[in-house]
Amino acid sequence: MAVPPSTRPRRLLPLFLGLFQGVLLLYFALFVTYDQPSAQVEDTNLVASQVYSTFPFFQDIQVMLVVGLGLLLAFLPRYGFSALTHNFLLLNFSMQWALVLQGLLHHFHHGQVHLDLHKILISEFAAVTVLISVGAILGRASPCQLLVMATCEIPVYLASEWVIVTRLGVLDVGGTITIHVFSCYFGLGVSKALFRATQQPLHPKETPTPRSDLMSLVGTLILWVFWPSFVAVLCQPGDVQHRAILNTLLAMSASAITTVVASSLLERDGKLSLGHLQNSSLAGGVAIGVVADMALPPVAALVLGSLSAVVCVLGFKFLTPFLGRKLTLHDQCGIHNLHGLPGILGAAASTVAVLVASKDTSGSHSSQLSPTGGNASEMVGGQWGGRGAGGQALSQAAGLAVAIGASLLAGLLTGAALRFPCLAQPPERLCFDDSLYFKIQDQAESSGPDSSAEEGAVALKEQV
Amino acid sequence: MAVPPSTRPRRLLPLFLGLFQGVLLLYFALFVTYDQPSAQVEDTNLVASQVYSTFPFFQDIQVMLVVGLGLLLAFLPRYGFSALTHNFLLLNFSMQWALVLQGLLHHFHHGQVHLDLHKILISEFAAVTVLISVGAILGRASPCQLLVMATCEIPVYLASEWVIVTRLGVLDVGGTITIHVFSCYFGLGVSKALFRATQQPLHPKETPTPRSDLMSLVGTLILWVFWPSFVAVLCQPGDVQHRAILNTLLAMSASAITTVVASSLLERDGKLSLGHLQNSSLAGGVAIGVVADMALPPVAALVLGSLSAVVCVLGFKFLTPFLGRKLTLHDQCGIHNLHGLPGILGAAASTVAVLVASKDTSGSHSSQLSPTGGNASEMVGGQWGGRGAGGQALSQAAGLAVAIGASLLAGLLTGAALRFPCLAQPPERLCFDDSLYFKIQDQAESSGPDSSAEEGAVALKEQV
Amino acid sequence: MAVPPSTRPRRLLPLFLGLFQGVLLLYFALFVTYDQPSAQVEDTNLVASQVYSTFPFFQDIQVMLVVGLGLLLAFLPRYGFSALTHNFLLLNFSMQWALVLQGLLHHFHHGQVHLDLHKILISEFAAVTVLISVGAILGRASPCQLLVMATCEIPVYLASEWVIVTRLGVLDVGGTITIHVFSCYFGLGVSKALFRATQQPLHPKETPTPRSDLMSLVGTLILWVFWPSFVAVLCQPGDVQHRAILNTLLAMSASAITTVVASSLLERDGKLSLGHLQNSSLAGGVAIGVVADMALPPVAALVLGSLSAVVCVLGFKFLTPFLGRKLTLHDQCGIHNLHGLPGILGAAASTVAVLVASKDTSGSHSSQLSPTGGNASEMVGGQWGGRGAGGQALSQAAGLAVAIGASLLAGLLTGAALRFPCLAQPPERLCFDDSLYFKIQDQAESSGPDSSAEEGAVALKEQV
Repeated sequence: MAVPPSTRPRRLLPLFLGLFQGVLLLYFALFVTYDQPSAQVEDTNLVASQVYSTFPFFQDIQVMLVVGLGLLLAFLPRYGFSALTHNFLLLNFSMQWALVLQGLLHHFHHGQVHLDLHKILISEFAAVTVLISVGAILGRASPCQLLVMATCEIPVYLASEWVIVTRLGVLDVGGTITIHVFSCYFGLGVSKALFRATQQPLHPKETPTPRSDLMSLVGTLILWVFWPSFVAVLCQPGDVQHRAILNTLLAMSASAITTVVASSLLERDGKLSLGHLQNSSLAGGVAIGVVADMALPPVAALVLGSLSAVVCVLGFKFLTPFLGRKLTLHDQCGIHNLHGLPGILGAAASTVAVLVASKDTSGSHSSQLSPTGGNASEMVGGQWGGRGAGGQALSQAAGLAVAIGASLLAGLLTGAALRFPCLAQPPERLCFDDSLYFKIQDQAESSGPDSSAEEGAVALKEQV
Repeated sequence: MAVPPSTRPRRLLPLFLGLFQGVLLLYFALFVTYDQPSAQVEDTNLVASQVYSTFPFFQDIQVMLVVGLGLLLAFLPRYGFSALTHNFLLLNFSMQWALVLQGLLHHFHHGQVHLDLHKILISEFAAVTVLISVGAILGRASPCQLLVMATCEIPVYLASEWVIVTRLGVLDVGGTITIHVFSCYFGLGVSKALFRATQQPLHPKETPTPRSDLMSLVGTLILWVFWPSFVAVLCQPGDVQHRAILNTLLAMSASAITTVVASSLLERDGKLSLGHLQNSSLAGGVAIGVVADMALPPVAALVLGSLSAVVCVLGFKFLTPFLGRKLTLHDQCGIHNLHGLPGILGAAASTVAVLVASKDTSGSHSSQLSPTGGNASEMVGGQWGGRGAGGQALSQAAGLAVAIGASLLAGLLTGAALRFPCLAQPPERLCFDDSLYFKIQDQAESSGPDSSAEEGAVALKEQV
Repeated sequence: MAVPPSTRPRRLLPLFLGLFQGVLLLYFALFVTYDQPSAQVEDTNLVASQVYSTFPFFQDIQVMLVVGLGLLLAFLPRYGFSALTHNFLLLNFSMQWALVLQGLLHHFHHGQVHLDLHKILISEFAAVTVLISVGAILGRASPCQLLVMATCEIPVYLASEWVIVTRLGVLDVGGTITIHVFSCYFGLGVSKALFRATQQPLHPKETPTPRSDLMSLVGTLILWVFWPSFVAVLCQPGDVQHRAILNTLLAMSASAITTVVASSLLERDGKLSLGHLQNSSLAGGVAIGVVADMALPPVAALVLGSLSAVVCVLGFKFLTPFLGRKLTLHDQCGIHNLHGLPGILGAAASTVAVLVASKDTSGSHSSQLSPTGGNASEMVGGQWGGRGAGGQALSQAAGLAVAIGASLLAGLLTGAALRFPCLAQPPERLCFDDSLYFKIQDQAESSGPDSSAEEGAVALKEQV
């Protein structure tokens, strides 16, 4: 029995990826080199100490993104392979794509781009936006759609990040605004334009099982443990990085406890919701990023961690259902609750922090409270590039506006593009099922007779 | 149908936690600050190198406690969420509580406490005692009981640690006596006072399934890998830390192999017991802590690792059933075998090591065998604060006695306090079941019809 | 009912291991010491910085071997305990055995061997060969057979590594030739001699379930993340190590994407094969090891990563079935595809790299392209010990030949030795089943009535 219509869209994935690998190889062959090896012993020692100061953080972040986030997304009981593999594929694809674009835009000198660990790290940060955005449409989009989405999101992110950090001078060492808020509204935009006004019914395969929820919880715990590395990796070594680590630890710890309080209070019989635990425990890490390196008192990190967990739980309980009903906005993983709301909270906190810091500075102990550094800030004249506290506070707010506006707009356009039939969006009844994309060797255990591969092919044929 | 009696105790958890977070915020707002940022370049470099030398160890320990220990405790097939979440909650709660108490007791200068990574690490060590003790009553206690237990255990631990390390001058860099022995007997005391003379029958949900045993084994392996970081993090950088890492590696490796030998010999048909593997593989790490930084010959680490694994397996095979029958002492995870017996063995080894080292010192190669450092030791006059080998050996023994005595007494009192009805100890038939504390979304898969949420509520009503 | 015949071989395991631990203790007691502690502050700082520069890499590698590789091997649905435990046991046994042999052969001065972290690391590398080789016969061999295999493989590896690296001067910083190629052909030799001409039929328990495949995929991701640490740990700090990390990152990333392309193209309906994903994603790491520290342009790492993934997928699709049919060669985990083919590809690439580098060196920018270091290379006179590019290229090829030849021969002999009946090879119908080696507490869940422990004992009796 020939099944050409159903297999055709599946050929698109290797074609697209193969083509991209070709472009990447060409770009690398033409332009990319490593640094000249150092001739001097001092230079060698410098490189060595840079490697030792960055590489452990880098590995922590890799574990977060590949293992932690992959497992967190594996809460759909029959979509675990897809969650892990698509996350893994998108990380690599987006990182390479960001490497190309960033090289061409920022690092191109005399026809060459010098590759180093820092540039790979920066590209990995860009890839994170894609991994977050995808959460809005997890399980309902084909790999081709996800790759097209990544292709569109990375350049928009780079542009937005350039405007926010370089032009507006926004301080955001942990990527709260540039990464979390941006990727959240990009994802929501995609979801809105892709699914339009059709409310997504509850799919029978959408409900987590205890087993898949446990995997997802382990993913959360891995993310929770390594989050300080994510926030602090780009900080200036020394006090600033030390403070960023401490602030993140405090915020994460407050989030963890507040999540239990909030979830337990909101559920009818005082039981905990696993969805809340899996997400809100991390909300403090999202919010703290933008102020982690600022000279806040430690209590501020605790308050921010607690508040963001509360906001996240409330979002899951009330806002997500509300948006689903009123705006027919589909948000599969609740990225708006974990990345959107805490991100906005963090941005607001950064505005306050800048204003408060400036007041204190005019008081007695000035050196303590001025923000000393952060990767993105260019501290000319000691005080936020000479623009004053009010100006900096405005910048933070403007940065937030740019992130939301640009991402929503670009997300809506991208989502519209994802509706192209050739991208093979799976039909409703084949959503959330690994067997559409993977050769599952033991069909008997994983799926009933109603979703066999033959039926899948037929169903896909009907739609495409 | 109104179910007020069953829900009331569940309201206690958020109340208790919320209150505690309030106290924590108040304490932080009033007293806690970060260090002044360094004005000098040298100071900045110093802070940077301190961060780089501590932070990777710190992250390893976080992985151990959050992921490794959480998974190890998840061997109960229908109690995985509770094991992971209660462990996670208790770690955060106890760490914060220890931070408050330690700040007030030890670090309070001019109305301020300067927070740094080292203080958080020390508080994390305090929290470990709670995580271990809880193993004795895992599955049979409510989260409220566990939190009250943590509230009681942390101050007793701090007092006991102060007496043992500061007053008695006990050398215990890896926390064998201060953490492992202490937490074991505290947990056993709690268990005894909580369950009194009632022998706990074997619960049908108590038997691990292959799936839950596999998760638990993965947890063991994670703990096994990162154990050297736990033992060595507080050592003096340089030779001492290097030696502590090597000793721990050797002891863990010997434990792993000896566990297979011992388990295989003891089981009737030469098969391995998973309980033995999950626990005894780690016994060497418990025992080596107290001597890891001492100038032992490497063979001593191997012997200690092997012996502690043997002792641990024998404990599981003979002592736990014996204590259960004779003393009606309930030890769910066998913490006495993993933490108590190897801890005592390590303490005894430290006494011997001190005496042997002193003999060798009077011989030819003196500098090699005197213990050079350890975080807790104050080496005045070169030789154990001037008290001589015999005195130091006595100190080690006295420290062990204090740890056992204080923890047993405090544990018994705490256990008696946990019997308060308002703490909502679950009735026997609802033990070992996540559905009592978690909104399990897919009841069909995880539990039979005999333990539905309705029945749970009814049963709880009957008891409370 | 007495079952002496079936239990007798099981007594061999503790006997063998116990004896080995005795020998180890004796060796350590007689010969092994730690370094003298440094008297000078500068020396202490040096040791400290060595620990900080090695230990994080070491821990990454431990996670890879204990957790990552263990989980990767747990793809057999009812053999998870065995996969994790045998891997763990063999790692410890082989590491200790390598420590003894290396100490006696290389580090024996004045009747003493000074133990340090570097020596343990080197022994761990030796142990990796065993862990890889075992993959060829996973599930069909008893623990006793595996231990005998490790006992034979370690000395052959040490000899082969000495010839390849020290005598031939082969550059192989990541162990592509010395570890991966060697262990692959050793394992295949063992498999051939052990199973001879009998084609192994497909066993009903051999097919992965979604659950076991998911665990295995998580193992792959853990290996993928930490692979750069494995390749770069022995590099010279500074530029060389930096480049090795970057090359490995690029190769791994290219492998990940190319695996999806290749697997999707080869499977009939464009679906991905989990076996491909679990293995080919790592192929780039195998291949890049031998050239990671050489002065390649970055594009070469991408090409090598892509090619090795293609070769690996093709191997699984065509070569493994072919070898199974034509040579009755049984390769349970496909180690030939993951370690053999990419290893040979890497070795070939190293030959090319050496020749190309030398051509470039005679041109304008000499210093950039000569390989500056690698742990094993002794760069006398600046250019590969003065032997010239052609000579070095020949060395690389000769090293590959030695690795293949020595390992195949030794593997065949070892496999023949494993046929001794006292080593208790499990009969066909008891293969791939944990219950042969573990006290499975809940038989009901894990296995049907057809494989109960009683039946197992009977079946074993019949064979032995």
